[in-house]
Amino acid sequence: MSSQPRLAIIGFGAFGQLIARHLRDHLPICVCDPVTRANDLPQVGLAEAARCQIIVLAVPLSRLEVVLRTIAPHLLPGALVVDVASVKIRPAELMQQILPDHVQIVASHPLFGPESTRDGLAGHRIAWCPLRGEGHRRAGALLRRLGLRVLCTTPDQHDREMAVVQGLTHLIARGLGEMGPLPDRLTTASFRRLAEAAAMVQADSPELLQAILTGNPHAGPVRRRFLAAAAGIADGEAA
Amino acid sequence: MSSQPRLAIIGFGAFGQLIARHLRDHLPICVCDPVTRANDLPQVGLAEAARCQIIVLAVPLSRLEVVLRTIAPHLLPGALVVDVASVKIRPAELMQQILPDHVQIVASHPLFGPESTRDGLAGHRIAWCPLRGEGHRRAGALLRRLGLRVLCTTPDQHDREMAVVQGLTHLIARGLGEMGPLPDRLTTASFRRLAEAAAMVQADSPELLQAILTGNPHAGPVRRRFLAAAAGIADGEAA
Repeated sequence: MSSQPRLAIIGFGAFGQLIARHLRDHLPICVCDPVTRANDLPQVGLAEAARCQIIVLAVPLSRLEVVLRTIAPHLLPGALVVDVASVKIRPAELMQQILPDHVQIVASHPLFGPESTRDGLAGHRIAWCPLRGEGHRRAGALLRRLGLRVLCTTPDQHDREMAVVQGLTHLIARGLGEMGPLPDRLTTASFRRLAEAAAMVQADSPELLQAILTGNPHAGPVRRRFLAAAAGIADGEAA
Repeated sequence: MSSQPRLAIIGFGAFGQLIARHLRDHLPICVCDPVTRANDLPQVGLAEAARCQIIVLAVPLSRLEVVLRTIAPHLLPGALVVDVASVKIRPAELMQQILPDHVQIVASHPLFGPESTRDGLAGHRIAWCPLRGEGHRRAGALLRRLGLRVLCTTPDQHDREMAVVQGLTHLIARGLGEMGPLPDRLTTASFRRLAEAAAMVQADSPELLQAILTGNPHAGPVRRRFLAAAAGIADGEAA
């Protein structure tokens, strides 16, 4: 057996697959997903995944609590559990409440996806909230070696900023999506940037959209502030 | 005297200056503005400007009608009058109503500004609506030689597309502007595009914003459709 820590990816959707692609040359990896199988990585059940040294939770937010309760009794002392959900307050609370004291915890949010990292990870960012233990140091160092910018923050600060960053990007992208086909001939440079931004998040899953819009307690107020400001500008100018 | 046609720029704001910068090596230019003077180009009054072979109207939309009425009696037969306003239905109507039959008319909208053409004109676009006469052919050919993409359209089609392209870009940019300083550390690639788009139009003048939001008859309905769609998405997800 290898002396390297073994890493389990629980949840093999678009993001779980992205993680496997970039980490498989660095660590032995196994995959746990009720539906999607990896082509050439070992497939394991939740209990076996829970007995790895590093466990990455890449499940939808709505599934996180039940997965945590299922793996909790099997986790080894010193194991490092990392979630990658797009919001951080709620996952951080759940992990701290449910996971036994003998495991280490990092709440993380990779600020990229399959679309934006087609040309590689270099220069992309990951929000990093060490919550328990010192295991975040080695894990963070590995991510830096992959070219990522590891940005330490707290779950609350993360969700505050993401309420603007992701909340408004997705809101605007979905709003533009409802306008029908966007003009592509008579366009300005600024509009092309806007349309690019919208296209980049259009393929995101409904689960991700829901997490961003409703799983972040700061998102609603930010969204209402933006819509009121935009409506006010329109009314003001039309008056 | 030169045999080349002389070009008058009426209105020497940000856009008039941009035109002078790019055309001064190709044509003799004079400038007419009640306030702003050109450093090293001849300054003329409205009546003298009106006696040039090409007259570019770079005044705010709110000033267009009075300028047209002032220059109309002085225009030479065969002169080419081109406006550069950001909306086209209203200027096209005014020019066709007010200008004598013996002048040629193009309604145009350069889809760029000082910010987006810092590195030059090449590849940028101009919406081009020939309304009267054949003078648009030579003028269009000159613009193509400068590297521009000259896109022929009608005033109505232009305003329909710009209601989305400029109307929503400016609405979103102003809405984001009201959110206070935007996050710049925990950001996604899509959000950075969005913030870039907003930054590109932030310096635009209040007159331009007003023309875009209220001088385009298609802008209000498009804006309301976008805001309703965005609000509906937010409500739907929150439900």
